Amino acid sequence: MPDVIPADSVGIVTPEIAHFDQPLSLTSGGVIDTYDLIYETYGELNPQKSNAVLVCHALSSNHHVAGYHSMEDKKPGWWENMVGPGKAIDTNRFFVVACNNLGGCYGSTGPASINPATGKPFGPEFPIVTVRDWVESQARLSDRLGIDTWAAVVGGSLGGMQAIQWSIDYPERLRHAVVIAAAPKLTAQNIAFNEVARQAIRTDPNFHDGRYYDFNTEPDRGLRIARMLGHITYLSDEAMREKFGRDLRDEKIDFDFDVEFQVESYLRYQADSFVGKFDANTYLLITKVLDYFDPAENFGGDLTRVMAQARASFLVVSFTSDWRFAPSRSREIVKSIHDNDLNVSYAEIKASQGHDAFLMKIPHYLDVVGAYMDRAAKEVGA
Amino acid sequence: MPDVIPADSVGIVTPEIAHFDQPLSLTSGGVIDTYDLIYETYGELNPQKSNAVLVCHALSSNHHVAGYHSMEDKKPGWWENMVGPGKAIDTNRFFVVACNNLGGCYGSTGPASINPATGKPFGPEFPIVTVRDWVESQARLSDRLGIDTWAAVVGGSLGGMQAIQWSIDYPERLRHAVVIAAAPKLTAQNIAFNEVARQAIRTDPNFHDGRYYDFNTEPDRGLRIARMLGHITYLSDEAMREKFGRDLRDEKIDFDFDVEFQVESYLRYQADSFVGKFDANTYLLITKVLDYFDPAENFGGDLTRVMAQARASFLVVSFTSDWRFAPSRSREIVKSIHDNDLNVSYAEIKASQGHDAFLMKIPHYLDVVGAYMDRAAKEVGA
Repeated sequence: MPDVIPADSVGIVTPEIAHFDQPLSLTSGGVIDTYDLIYETYGELNPQKSNAVLVCHALSSNHHVAGYHSMEDKKPGWWENMVGPGKAIDTNRFFVVACNNLGGCYGSTGPASINPATGKPFGPEFPIVTVRDWVESQARLSDRLGIDTWAAVVGGSLGGMQAIQWSIDYPERLRHAVVIAAAPKLTAQNIAFNEVARQAIRTDPNFHDGRYYDFNTEPDRGLRIARMLGHITYLSDEAMREKFGRDLRDEKIDFDFDVEFQVESYLRYQADSFVGKFDANTYLLITKVLDYFDPAENFGGDLTRVMAQARASFLVVSFTSDWRFAPSRSREIVKSIHDNDLNVSYAEIKASQGHDAFLMKIPHYLDVVGAYMDRAAKEVGA
Repeated sequence: MPDVIPADSVGIVTPEIAHFDQPLSLTSGGVIDTYDLIYETYGELNPQKSNAVLVCHALSSNHHVAGYHSMEDKKPGWWENMVGPGKAIDTNRFFVVACNNLGGCYGSTGPASINPATGKPFGPEFPIVTVRDWVESQARLSDRLGIDTWAAVVGGSLGGMQAIQWSIDYPERLRHAVVIAAAPKLTAQNIAFNEVARQAIRTDPNFHDGRYYDFNTEPDRGLRIARMLGHITYLSDEAMREKFGRDLRDEKIDFDFDVEFQVESYLRYQADSFVGKFDANTYLLITKVLDYFDPAENFGGDLTRVMAQARASFLVVSFTSDWRFAPSRSREIVKSIHDNDLNVSYAEIKASQGHDAFLMKIPHYLDVVGAYMDRAAKEVGA
């Protein structure tokens, strides 16, 4: 818990819930009749309503981007390094909004929510959603908040994919898109890792075809494996070497199946602390959101053609040691923007932390985003 | 099944079993009192017994390196591309020997074998073995076959690690070591992947602490996940792109959890065909053999110091797209040999297939090994 809330934190924050009654038609052909989105806001919306920034979250995170929910909170929001008074996304200047995406498990309607039609959790009946569907639901949240145009839509990893989709689907509703550690679509290898994670969850005997809520159990073993695997892809080989090397946990080799090396201990800890706080059906769903993301799909696979719809200016950021979404993937995005004569700044940040770098306190990275956001703020008089 | 046995195959082969009664003291401190090693041989041992080549196998393979067990066999041995009459390891010139390693599940004594002390399968009582222990057991097999000095000890991946260990532990008993797609020890990331595979198996409810034989079941779900994960690390991102791209299995997206992309289908098929033919306790054991391999461990981590014991000449081969054991890892091995003024040839083969390249019919690769083995044959008058 924070003894004292740091001065550069947004402090104690309280999430709000927006309820939507207008049915949402999904890319898959399904419909969600009614739904809730849980969200947080930091800073003040200016009278012109021009200083709003939407932060989109990645696979396993949520609407709690910055600050603390109470003085008992052990940790701040997941992007405390980035968002706060005087920080790169400066809450003294911007009104920052973040919601838990549809299908999530942190308060927005998702597989664990009660299906009004049955009175039981949706489970496997929750429809497959896509990044487009998320953007549509976020656009409705924007309407609700009276925000016509975002000063910027910002996100890392899957969050960056949402920023790209925003620029395509609502070109007039954002001035800037900040796309960090993202890719224009997954590789076969990315999909393969997702598939192993899904198979681990779906073959867990406690999965019960996704209806585990009815059995008062959870496919924890599968979710644990999925999370361990995820963590390997979030870290670079280099980061693992720096963090753990081949250090033994004890001084000597034990020749058994208990934890022998530090890296094993790290993975088990990360997995154990994830289980119980994340819903397995949401995990499955969001890996599918990632697999299906491919904005160029209906444009003959030509990213330049689809990005022709965009009007925003872009900041694209990648990290040298990110092998999940490597810098080359960001450069594909940059090229498609360039090809359309749109403004794009690109920064390839030297960092050893792998994909996870986008969450970290890396001065050069935060400076780059800060400088870009400073100009974005000035444009709207913030 | 082969309609006709190809002329460049060793043809129909029959494994043999060598039984050992002399207890084997293990690196872990344990002892195996008696054990069997199943092995195959191809070609003829010359009167001077100087033309013998030992082939060491990798994680999930075995003693069946080349040829067919019967006319009904669907596939030949795992290194049919490399070993046979007129091939790189030419069975017209060499007497090739390969055994299933101790702890294996193809006929050598392993966790699924009956423990004479209890009359039940060893299961978790089977001791942890190491590459050193394997080399010791292979040395005893050499004695049994009357082979004092190997013309070469050859292996890919974990097999290459055995060739390195041979050169350290029995420097006078091999003239050449051929080390393909190997590493001097695992990285933290390598260990991390192994740990996820182990956790998948060990948390399968059918694992029963490794005593699943008593329950007439197998931890198939866990082994399936382990195998899928393994396959991702055996292929390069590039190989996956070439093989599958993001191709859909059907022409349209189904928006469900059935197989959507080709790569998912491939992984599920590979996993399903592995389960039922490989023992999960052996899989666990061999991942530990990999984790523990570190010949420089007792030499202050200095590979050059430990390689000072070697007397063999070396061929080291790596593949450009191998990210499991990257070329840089092979160069570490090469450097440690160079530093000791030993003969070493090194070839970095341009190949897109990733780690699996060592098994494949890549002409330049097979030519390099063939040319090296030709010289090795001439040295011994074969």
